[in-house]
Amino acid sequence: MIGATERPGSVGRAIMENLIQRFRGKIYPVNIRRDTVLGLKCYRSVKEIPDEVDLAVVAVPAPTVLQVAEECGEKGVKALLVISAGFKEVGGEGAERERKLVEIVRRFGMRMIGPNCLGIYDPYSGLDTIFNPSDRQGKPGPGDVAFISQSGALGAALLDWFTEEGIGLSKFVSYGNAADVDESDLIEYLAEDPRTRVIAAYIEGVKNGRRFLNAVSEAVARGKRVVILKAGRTARGVQAAESHTGSLAGNYSVFLGALKQVGAIVVEDLNDLLLCIKALQAPSTLRGRRIAIVTNGGGAGVMATDALETMGMEIATLDQSTVEELRKVLPPAASTRNPIDVLGDAPAERYEKALEIVARDPNVDGIMVIALLQSPALDPDKFVEVMERAKSFGKPMVFAAPGGEYAARVLTRVQSLGIPSFRDPTQAARALKYLYQASQVRVRRTRF
Amino acid sequence: MIGATERPGSVGRAIMENLIQRFRGKIYPVNIRRDTVLGLKCYRSVKEIPDEVDLAVVAVPAPTVLQVAEECGEKGVKALLVISAGFKEVGGEGAERERKLVEIVRRFGMRMIGPNCLGIYDPYSGLDTIFNPSDRQGKPGPGDVAFISQSGALGAALLDWFTEEGIGLSKFVSYGNAADVDESDLIEYLAEDPRTRVIAAYIEGVKNGRRFLNAVSEAVARGKRVVILKAGRTARGVQAAESHTGSLAGNYSVFLGALKQVGAIVVEDLNDLLLCIKALQAPSTLRGRRIAIVTNGGGAGVMATDALETMGMEIATLDQSTVEELRKVLPPAASTRNPIDVLGDAPAERYEKALEIVARDPNVDGIMVIALLQSPALDPDKFVEVMERAKSFGKPMVFAAPGGEYAARVLTRVQSLGIPSFRDPTQAARALKYLYQASQVRVRRTRF
Repeated sequence: MIGATERPGSVGRAIMENLIQRFRGKIYPVNIRRDTVLGLKCYRSVKEIPDEVDLAVVAVPAPTVLQVAEECGEKGVKALLVISAGFKEVGGEGAERERKLVEIVRRFGMRMIGPNCLGIYDPYSGLDTIFNPSDRQGKPGPGDVAFISQSGALGAALLDWFTEEGIGLSKFVSYGNAADVDESDLIEYLAEDPRTRVIAAYIEGVKNGRRFLNAVSEAVARGKRVVILKAGRTARGVQAAESHTGSLAGNYSVFLGALKQVGAIVVEDLNDLLLCIKALQAPSTLRGRRIAIVTNGGGAGVMATDALETMGMEIATLDQSTVEELRKVLPPAASTRNPIDVLGDAPAERYEKALEIVARDPNVDGIMVIALLQSPALDPDKFVEVMERAKSFGKPMVFAAPGGEYAARVLTRVQSLGIPSFRDPTQAARALKYLYQASQVRVRRTRF
Repeated sequence: MIGATERPGSVGRAIMENLIQRFRGKIYPVNIRRDTVLGLKCYRSVKEIPDEVDLAVVAVPAPTVLQVAEECGEKGVKALLVISAGFKEVGGEGAERERKLVEIVRRFGMRMIGPNCLGIYDPYSGLDTIFNPSDRQGKPGPGDVAFISQSGALGAALLDWFTEEGIGLSKFVSYGNAADVDESDLIEYLAEDPRTRVIAAYIEGVKNGRRFLNAVSEAVARGKRVVILKAGRTARGVQAAESHTGSLAGNYSVFLGALKQVGAIVVEDLNDLLLCIKALQAPSTLRGRRIAIVTNGGGAGVMATDALETMGMEIATLDQSTVEELRKVLPPAASTRNPIDVLGDAPAERYEKALEIVARDPNVDGIMVIALLQSPALDPDKFVEVMERAKSFGKPMVFAAPGGEYAARVLTRVQSLGIPSFRDPTQAARALKYLYQASQVRVRRTRF
């Protein structure tokens, strides 16, 4: 950790604290002016470290970075993670400094993430260079979603959001100016990462479109589910992206078409990115479009029907035997046509009976369960147990429960069962659409 | 309160508890088998009540409702609110019972809400017949939003959701089967309600399309902002609505066109309904499409730009004097073109300076403020104070802060200032679009 310090509020201290708290490997603080940092022996230069160094995290002022990189090269450090800003993003002198930095990295055969980035958060190894204050910055636990972000600030905000939504991460990388390692390198790496099942990316522009598409295609072919949020979709958005990251945002519709062709899912806003990640995390595969809706509220069922129809999904036509079986177990006033209305007084057991019958129907590919939890009939603990058992009924499910805090608590519990869960039935419908899209991808590499 | 009881878990007890706790008027429990209910003198029949009765809340089994209504008529009760189910929604015998009920209501010159509804929640008078358990069912405080819902369960879920979002209500009405008072009556009433500024409605079908459109037109002409969520938009959705409320959902695109013509805003899902209500609650009027974005994160600014452009809003081209003034107060690396990037290290004061300058620009109609709150530079208390002062700068504002719980707390505080606040910049863009639509409505009654 080059630039390690104890100065309160500094980046160098925040990263040191993160590393001491979480990192499973050995930490060597480096600071020319200190003998120890937070109780660890501190080195005046990376070259004084007696052991081999795998990664140097660099958080020193921009003018010092070149010398530090040179020393890392001489020491035989394998990789740099340069947090420091003051490079290409400030233009002029900064751009020249970045060019020299890359030259040093190449000369010594190192690899580099950054500069001008937040760096890496890896909940498995505990490598964590995200230096925002811990009371403001949630960090997700371990999981199977890798998230890479060209924007550090937006990436950090999403990390925080993921934490609240219970989305577990395999890796987070804020790659900043991408002077060496870029979005294509990262996708190529994640395609082979056994801990990663879903790859999510916020990008404003890509350095090499063809290489990026090939990387995504390869990742999809290897069974990863990929979702891309590409900012700079409109003429003014492209201008804004150029002034932000200097990215040539390119023609969005061409990029969009190519991404879809290789099997990536493309979303257009943050809400949808979260929703899509939750959908793609589902362990299941949605083999067809035909959805059954099981609800205790007719209105929510109508809305779900509209949403599914509008999105190109289908409202399953239930087999006659399903309708007859449902009639046997549901009250006379219940609707046994799809959407199946188990009525407002339904206890959890009635949901279970209906789900068991509906899941057996060969005309049903997936199920949306809706629960209006405000009514007193539904015991939340029993309902969550039913949802857990219903996972074994063999059909992919999503869950919707409109409401406030009480509904949110039940949603969190159902989500933690691996069932994508949302407040709005329309969101649940979108999740089914994304799960269907991801499930339809043929394992076939497309080369560009 | 006819059907008042002390039986735990019963509708009659839950409503009595609500009324005793909140209602500002006099309460007369009626139950043939009791002398007192929860400490109040109980009457064997409504006819035994010594005073005049304005409203009878009826929660007795369906077969008893006709007799109760007859007695109310004889007593001279002005209005009925019939919670009881077992009418048209169950078909056959129930439909016949509903026909007879309406006949009684008409014969005595009463008016009736229901049957088969949750009834009314009025935070001002404390009239509250929403009988869901209080730990599951949030109820918003007083405010200027009236919400009417054809679906009781969905209406209750939205009440709960409004509570969490801090949306204050003037009235909530779940009108059930609408055997007498229907959606058009309610809109006509709310058009004249001085406490109501925004009218929101969830409907599956309307009884009389022409009358409904005239009512909405009149409400808009009287300065109310109206947002409608109409379920049953698609062929299968229409079928589902028919089986739910027996509504003839009608041709959605025709209805949609007519609603837009009279100045209502039409939304298609629950999230958007909440978003639109928050937008329309803003005290301000958005006179044009030209939006300035002030952000401390470039990526979020790009996303906001894309979203506004896509929605038909415009990214304001700043006046040259604005750009020059911004250059004087912002650091050299800041972007003084729109989106205005005050940079990740911006303290609240920098936002204030930028907002003051931007709000003066004659080319700017409205402002989207974006704050990535995870970074340590921005003091949340000072930021909220700046937003409060910025309200006096004279341009409508919306606010976006991506993130988790920490961001959510700041969003709630800014929202409570009357500034529509959202996690996703795309949502903030939608809010501006809705506010613009509502502000463009010409005060001109359209008759159908």
